Amino acid sequence: MAQADIALIGLAVMGQNLILNMNDHGFVVCAFNRTVSKVDDFLANEAKGTKVVGARSLEEMVSKLKKPRRVILLVKAGQAVDDFIEKLVPLLDAGDIIIDGGNSEYRDTTRRCRDLKAKGILFVGSGVSGGEEGARYGPSLMPGGNKEAWPHIKTIFQDIAAKVGTGEPCCDWVGEEGAGHFVKMVHNGIEYGDMQLICEAYHLMKDVLGMGHGEMAQAFEEWNKTELDSFLIEITANILKFQDTDGKHLLPKIRDSAGQKGTGKWTAISALEYGVPVTLIGEAVFARCLSSLKDERIQASRKLKGPQKVQFAGDKKSFLEDIRKALYASKIISYAQGFMLLRQAATEFGWTLNYGGIALMWRGGCIIRSVFLGKIKDAFDRNPALQNLLLDDFFKSAVENCQDSWRRVVSTGVQVGIPMPCFTTALSFYDGYRHDMLPANLIQAQRDYFGAHTYELLDTPGHFIHTNWTGHGGSVSSSSYNA
Amino acid sequence: MAQADIALIGLAVMGQNLILNMNDHGFVVCAFNRTVSKVDDFLANEAKGTKVVGARSLEEMVSKLKKPRRVILLVKAGQAVDDFIEKLVPLLDAGDIIIDGGNSEYRDTTRRCRDLKAKGILFVGSGVSGGEEGARYGPSLMPGGNKEAWPHIKTIFQDIAAKVGTGEPCCDWVGEEGAGHFVKMVHNGIEYGDMQLICEAYHLMKDVLGMGHGEMAQAFEEWNKTELDSFLIEITANILKFQDTDGKHLLPKIRDSAGQKGTGKWTAISALEYGVPVTLIGEAVFARCLSSLKDERIQASRKLKGPQKVQFAGDKKSFLEDIRKALYASKIISYAQGFMLLRQAATEFGWTLNYGGIALMWRGGCIIRSVFLGKIKDAFDRNPALQNLLLDDFFKSAVENCQDSWRRVVSTGVQVGIPMPCFTTALSFYDGYRHDMLPANLIQAQRDYFGAHTYELLDTPGHFIHTNWTGHGGSVSSSSYNA
Repeated sequence: MAQADIALIGLAVMGQNLILNMNDHGFVVCAFNRTVSKVDDFLANEAKGTKVVGARSLEEMVSKLKKPRRVILLVKAGQAVDDFIEKLVPLLDAGDIIIDGGNSEYRDTTRRCRDLKAKGILFVGSGVSGGEEGARYGPSLMPGGNKEAWPHIKTIFQDIAAKVGTGEPCCDWVGEEGAGHFVKMVHNGIEYGDMQLICEAYHLMKDVLGMGHGEMAQAFEEWNKTELDSFLIEITANILKFQDTDGKHLLPKIRDSAGQKGTGKWTAISALEYGVPVTLIGEAVFARCLSSLKDERIQASRKLKGPQKVQFAGDKKSFLEDIRKALYASKIISYAQGFMLLRQAATEFGWTLNYGGIALMWRGGCIIRSVFLGKIKDAFDRNPALQNLLLDDFFKSAVENCQDSWRRVVSTGVQVGIPMPCFTTALSFYDGYRHDMLPANLIQAQRDYFGAHTYELLDTPGHFIHTNWTGHGGSVSSSSYNA
Repeated sequence: MAQADIALIGLAVMGQNLILNMNDHGFVVCAFNRTVSKVDDFLANEAKGTKVVGARSLEEMVSKLKKPRRVILLVKAGQAVDDFIEKLVPLLDAGDIIIDGGNSEYRDTTRRCRDLKAKGILFVGSGVSGGEEGARYGPSLMPGGNKEAWPHIKTIFQDIAAKVGTGEPCCDWVGEEGAGHFVKMVHNGIEYGDMQLICEAYHLMKDVLGMGHGEMAQAFEEWNKTELDSFLIEITANILKFQDTDGKHLLPKIRDSAGQKGTGKWTAISALEYGVPVTLIGEAVFARCLSSLKDERIQASRKLKGPQKVQFAGDKKSFLEDIRKALYASKIISYAQGFMLLRQAATEFGWTLNYGGIALMWRGGCIIRSVFLGKIKDAFDRNPALQNLLLDDFFKSAVENCQDSWRRVVSTGVQVGIPMPCFTTALSFYDGYRHDMLPANLIQAQRDYFGAHTYELLDTPGHFIHTNWTGHGGSVSSSSYNA
């Protein structure tokens, strides 16, 4: 008999934890796994004494579901998702709902959403963040796709999601097609940026101010009581404090070659594809690439000289505060760029995105969770049509209040030779963004000079003209061969 | 009767000019175009009195070719190339050669090279740079693909190519499959970087030193007599001098929204895909994206404050020289990054690339042509296995000799609020590259803390371990949900 509120396919830890989370909130979940023995194990162990029911076939699973049927897939992104969809469709009725909670690429989600819409099935692609712990006790959920599905899954999703403030769930409807997975991708890109910014602060503390690990841990603990209050700042303090079995700090023993799983890279590639200057995430991804060239860097460090080492002369306490403000200002730029990318994607794909909702979804449950995201939510509450975070009065003032410190940190770091790819690109972006006139007029003149690519005059935008710069007959044109 | 040395399909200006160039060098060219009337027009006009012959069908064209038959396509990149290949193959014999001289994407070239190899046809994808003028009097040619074709086209290609020094041709064999078009793509990416670097120098001259257009033109003319001697510096001086019909300088009237045709973007995307920190081209592409947000920048300029305006106090002449050195050092970084990308592509695709030859191909004929590229050629002559340009003694010394100036320019620009995305990313790269220890150990610790992604110790690379950072049972793992 149909008793289950929802079914979940894929009993890896993420899937198991989401089931137990839903069970805790009073929902009856039917568990299924391709390797059926896993279902029995789960019911006999982790799910023992819960209302969770099992299924030994997709047919049995579907037969146990109330209508409209709701099925969540938590399987490996890619072919496995398409395979299960293909098997499920014949067993489902029009109006039933398939949800992909995996780490799917947003284009795949858009494709599946369209294919299933044609078959009358409502498809949802949901970003799930917060890892196993989050899945069990409150993840950040970013559902997008066929909106007709939302009323039927909203209660379950918002009940199991992380809560912030006065119980607001970190889950809301994101937008059409692959919007949920696109937003999850941008979340991960922003995570890359936040981590790199913290690394640059750590590098400056260690090598400019010569702070010890205890001191640095204390600084991050202090920072965690300021606008920077966030999960990543908190764990950085814990990491700095952490001592190895020999009583020495563990961090300096760790190899400085950063790995990556690609989602940050996808974000930067999307930024390039859609022409949005998401420079900070781009630099953060490249910083990981450079870090991974460990052997080459060791070789280079023996050969390439930096500036003369000079003892820091200024006031340490105030420079430490300068670093904090540089990090805060850079972080504001990074999120402003991230939301610029979301806005452009909405235009590219014709999506209507819920920007304030997205900030709230990231406010808790996920790796970038922070008080800061509450401020972004507030900004979009004040003005849902806000074109850019930097144009919001709160963030405008915040950056302006930080900028002297920010400039001091960057120029000091540049003088002593500390790499700060993200602090500096954020500042370049801020200075570029606030310039009504950039030197790109020279680029346009050069492109017209060598390629007859034409240009616009400030007075007559939209009207493209060509100048014969060289005088000697016609244009020294390189046509489309030089972009 | 078979009389023609080579056939060319596609009689747009590029194609016509290449034909006339080949004719000047004594080769008999057979011209063909899909719209046959264009052949008649060409023979009756531009090609009048030359040895050029025409064909009114592909069959006729092929019948007029000596063996092995050589056919150059200069048609629109994409489907048109595949269509002509499909029509040509049945008319050709094993060992005949098809050359794509268009702006094809390197992956397409690799695919075509493999498909045609299976059919016994030798395929070459050649980058062609220098535009219409170059095509007519000496382009930069970057041929890659099936090397068996090279002996049969080498004479023609090197005869019509641009010459430098004591007549060395700016054309050599690049490498396998899509290598020729990949190298052309990187050329265009480097071109984006060079142009942005010049813009940043121009911005600093104009807004920090308050130089007029005449002064700036003179500065670039002077610079063109130094290590910066190059086509782009030369035309920048001419552009700065150029006066509109009203006697006023034209440059400041041009709208500062840079366009792009995508090849710079492709280079940055490839860098991300293959994990190479080609940060300068990435920033140059993003700088164009930001410049195109003209209306938003105007709005932002009214709202966002920069630092207090301060009159430049230092010595103008020496700061101008600092800017020149900052540009030179940044340019060295950009080319070092570009060659890092070529080296990684060679590894990814199993290509054997001719790095010195590539520098020589860019030395003349193309938009980035410069004396500087001769120095790069010299570096690879000294050490064909050179891992990185920065590890060559000449470039090592050049950067070290510039770095004090470079740091002064960046810290000054940062203090006064001039955006310098490429000057600063180049410096961050240099400082990161020469650090044997970067703060990425903290990234690895964070990833292991929240995601149990594991890390290596400095002492035991290759051995991945996980630490239970929080102590409370197991790892606060976010599994693959956070990269």
